[in-house]
Amino acid sequence: MSQTFATPQDVEDAYYDAIDERDLEAMMAVWEDSEQTACLLPMMPLQRGPAAIREAWRPLLAGQVTLDMEIRHLGWIELGEIAIHLVEERVQAPGQAGRQAVYASNLYRKGSAGWRLLMHQNSPTPPAPGLKMPDLG
Amino acid sequence: MSQTFATPQDVEDAYYDAIDERDLEAMMAVWEDSEQTACLLPMMPLQRGPAAIREAWRPLLAGQVTLDMEIRHLGWIELGEIAIHLVEERVQAPGQAGRQAVYASNLYRKGSAGWRLLMHQNSPTPPAPGLKMPDLG
Repeated sequence: MSQTFATPQDVEDAYYDAIDERDLEAMMAVWEDSEQTACLLPMMPLQRGPAAIREAWRPLLAGQVTLDMEIRHLGWIELGEIAIHLVEERVQAPGQAGRQAVYASNLYRKGSAGWRLLMHQNSPTPPAPGLKMPDLG
Repeated sequence: MSQTFATPQDVEDAYYDAIDERDLEAMMAVWEDSEQTACLLPMMPLQRGPAAIREAWRPLLAGQVTLDMEIRHLGWIELGEIAIHLVEERVQAPGQAGRQAVYASNLYRKGSAGWRLLMHQNSPTPPAPGLKMPDLG
């Protein structure tokens, strides 16, 4: 946990590298060591705090499936010691034709030890044109 | 737009009241008047800025379907001039048995005119136990 990230983008790069390399310790090093942390992965319960986030990522990073993920930046919101990156994660899963896109927002906070990830949230992207829209949630 | 919200919770109450009352102007009054705003509603494209957010909400609030929404607080993250509320929106749609739950995170910022909504993001809640989990996105 001694790694220091100088910018929010450094944290983000390390986050997606940890997924790519299936490295749970590298994943946990990007998160702020605080119970304020929150992680919402697709179709999983909300996780609060490093211990819960670790247990949510453990089976995902231990899996056999290689996930080839492209990240496309949609926008940044800079708020002083807080930065929010809105991205599209374009995932190529084995045996699937084409990439599946997921929205993600990554919220970073600057602390005494540099920038860390405070919150990650995924959302589905819209269905293809012509599909029925779901009820407003 | 002259309304002043003294706390993030006041903004949140006004946001859900605007949905309940189908009041587009009341909805827009809760948002910060800045191009940094971001709104991710279920299965819709990301909207940035008040003009885009207004056009996304216009047809939803003009619809005929009454949405009975219960809000359950899951957690707050307080960051000085920024506040994040993690909630579960439990929606009772007409003709559906039971409520459908959606995660939402609401990010508020304190400005010279009080608190305003800066970002709203929805995510699906997990499928019922026994259903297959989707690939990691």
